[in-house]
Amino acid sequence: MKRKTFGPVTSQQVAQIAGVSQSAVSRTFTPGASISPATREKVLKAARELGYRPNAIARSLNTARSRIVGVVMSYFDNQFYPQVLEALAQKLDELNYHLLLFVGDRDGNVDRIFDQIMQYRVDGIVLASVSLSIELSEECLAAGIPVVLFNRDDENGIVSSVNTDNEAAARQIAEFLLAGEHQRFAYVAGIADSSVNIARQAGFVSTLRSKGVEDIRVVQGNYDAQQTSRAARELFSSPQPPDAIFAANDHMALTVMDIARYEFGLRIPDDLSVIGYDDTGPSGWPSYALTSASQPVDEMVSATVALLMKQIESENIEPEQLVVKGALIVRHSARRPRSGVIEKDGLSLFQPQEVE
Amino acid sequence: MKRKTFGPVTSQQVAQIAGVSQSAVSRTFTPGASISPATREKVLKAARELGYRPNAIARSLNTARSRIVGVVMSYFDNQFYPQVLEALAQKLDELNYHLLLFVGDRDGNVDRIFDQIMQYRVDGIVLASVSLSIELSEECLAAGIPVVLFNRDDENGIVSSVNTDNEAAARQIAEFLLAGEHQRFAYVAGIADSSVNIARQAGFVSTLRSKGVEDIRVVQGNYDAQQTSRAARELFSSPQPPDAIFAANDHMALTVMDIARYEFGLRIPDDLSVIGYDDTGPSGWPSYALTSASQPVDEMVSATVALLMKQIESENIEPEQLVVKGALIVRHSARRPRSGVIEKDGLSLFQPQEVE
Repeated sequence: MKRKTFGPVTSQQVAQIAGVSQSAVSRTFTPGASISPATREKVLKAARELGYRPNAIARSLNTARSRIVGVVMSYFDNQFYPQVLEALAQKLDELNYHLLLFVGDRDGNVDRIFDQIMQYRVDGIVLASVSLSIELSEECLAAGIPVVLFNRDDENGIVSSVNTDNEAAARQIAEFLLAGEHQRFAYVAGIADSSVNIARQAGFVSTLRSKGVEDIRVVQGNYDAQQTSRAARELFSSPQPPDAIFAANDHMALTVMDIARYEFGLRIPDDLSVIGYDDTGPSGWPSYALTSASQPVDEMVSATVALLMKQIESENIEPEQLVVKGALIVRHSARRPRSGVIEKDGLSLFQPQEVE
Repeated sequence: MKRKTFGPVTSQQVAQIAGVSQSAVSRTFTPGASISPATREKVLKAARELGYRPNAIARSLNTARSRIVGVVMSYFDNQFYPQVLEALAQKLDELNYHLLLFVGDRDGNVDRIFDQIMQYRVDGIVLASVSLSIELSEECLAAGIPVVLFNRDDENGIVSSVNTDNEAAARQIAEFLLAGEHQRFAYVAGIADSSVNIARQAGFVSTLRSKGVEDIRVVQGNYDAQQTSRAARELFSSPQPPDAIFAANDHMALTVMDIARYEFGLRIPDDLSVIGYDDTGPSGWPSYALTSASQPVDEMVSATVALLMKQIESENIEPEQLVVKGALIVRHSARRPRSGVIEKDGLSLFQPQEVE
């Protein structure tokens, strides 16, 4: 069957059948435009009968809005990102925006993808798990296209971002493990120069140091299951293996737990405590029951979309660095301290008095 | 900063700086157009200097191609779908197509989303984990927009689809469990009217019946973790609990394993064998080592994209039902039969002689 590129039905025909003005038809299909429910009904009925649909792409040339947000994401094997993507698509859909998905290289190189995004005249861009070069950031500003870094920070402060307080959460994890009377600590790092890894490592290590802990080992997992497995084997094969490990995300923490249990016969948390970051779905599965710093996906996504919309609608890009509050969700993968764990909404949280 | 909707730079300016014709500029940015590498280099260099980008949306009005494929997906908590989405985005990107993501309702109602997809004049549509009403299927045909159902079948045969052989794989799972000398069987069903659930249930139950098995229980998990937990508790609380369970997907199978182990103290596979479908990432994690019927994501996605491209480029939609070959990946969640398990490419597969 031949492709009809443009539906034969015009808004004029719809107006005729519906017995309304052509502008009423156009307002019916313009998000946010004022239209009486009764008229809207007539138009939709007629449109349905005729199989009419407005051409969003043509409209975008008139309204200077594509109503498309470009999202760059990678690490789909880390459940955190699919959860974020699902929430982003739903939130944008509620606002009648749509999500053009780009898969980023793991090395975070986004330049090639970026050219493509820009070609679609997206109204905004969300960069998750990739960073943006200063050049590209400036190019976006010049083009007036809002960009939000999701779970990434911009040390130059020229790009907006949404994060949890990575350093504070990592400090709390160190406090938790110290209160649990652990002796030998290890940090399984993500990609060394990723902003969240830098913050999580700094908060964890500095807090331990400040309490006089000397035995802190840092190994590279690079957010990758195989590299994390190698790093874990290295730790557990050492003469004095750690009894407390903080992995920079849950995905690596679960790998560490599996290696510890199934290759080294370690009991968790008896022989080893493991803590992660993200609080993704699998962390709640009984096989892992991972203690983890939460990143509230819905709040982070709501903040991201609200920030984008504000910048799109005001046509004014004021970079903002938003921080969403997380919590240390206490499960069974790490020995619990005698005090400081409270019950709230069916969850166990670490909230010692001294930490606000 | 004010939004500049259309970059100030024109293809004319690029042609001037590059010292080439304007058509050379346009051909450089038209996928598949013929252009000498040298000229292309000049154009790209000039475009980069000037910050020029072609307007894909405006171009789509001329070429009658948006180079956008609409993808409808749900169940992001089932790792199979994020894996599929990542592969789809990458494959389409290689062909300079892009992916507009829509999250479907779990009840599979796609009509509202569908209106939105059509507004963007997508060149093709992939429906994963949602079905399409006959009305909508016909509407797509009328509009000349190719649709491929992914991991879903269309009993009417008017829509193209890509699947593994669900019924044959389920028969093989029954054979495997029979060869393992299990006695009491259960099937944890997905959504009752989903095509893959119907095929998997039919293959499993009919094979067991044909071998004279009477004790077959069917419970509803509906692809949902909570409903699956309830269904599992119901099974394990019964006077004669099953010793062999086939769950319609891995996501439910992992839940069944956790309930069995952590709520009923069952040993797997000593007391209970569990088999899933999809062979997703977590199924390979040592905590589960789930025996599962594989759905080769890359092959299924390649077949889907190839089918779409053929229909888009030929402007001729001949519905095709493609079946990709999977295998029963044997791990440790189910008791192994004495024979029929072979080693291949570092995997254990079930390939009894009698089954081709």
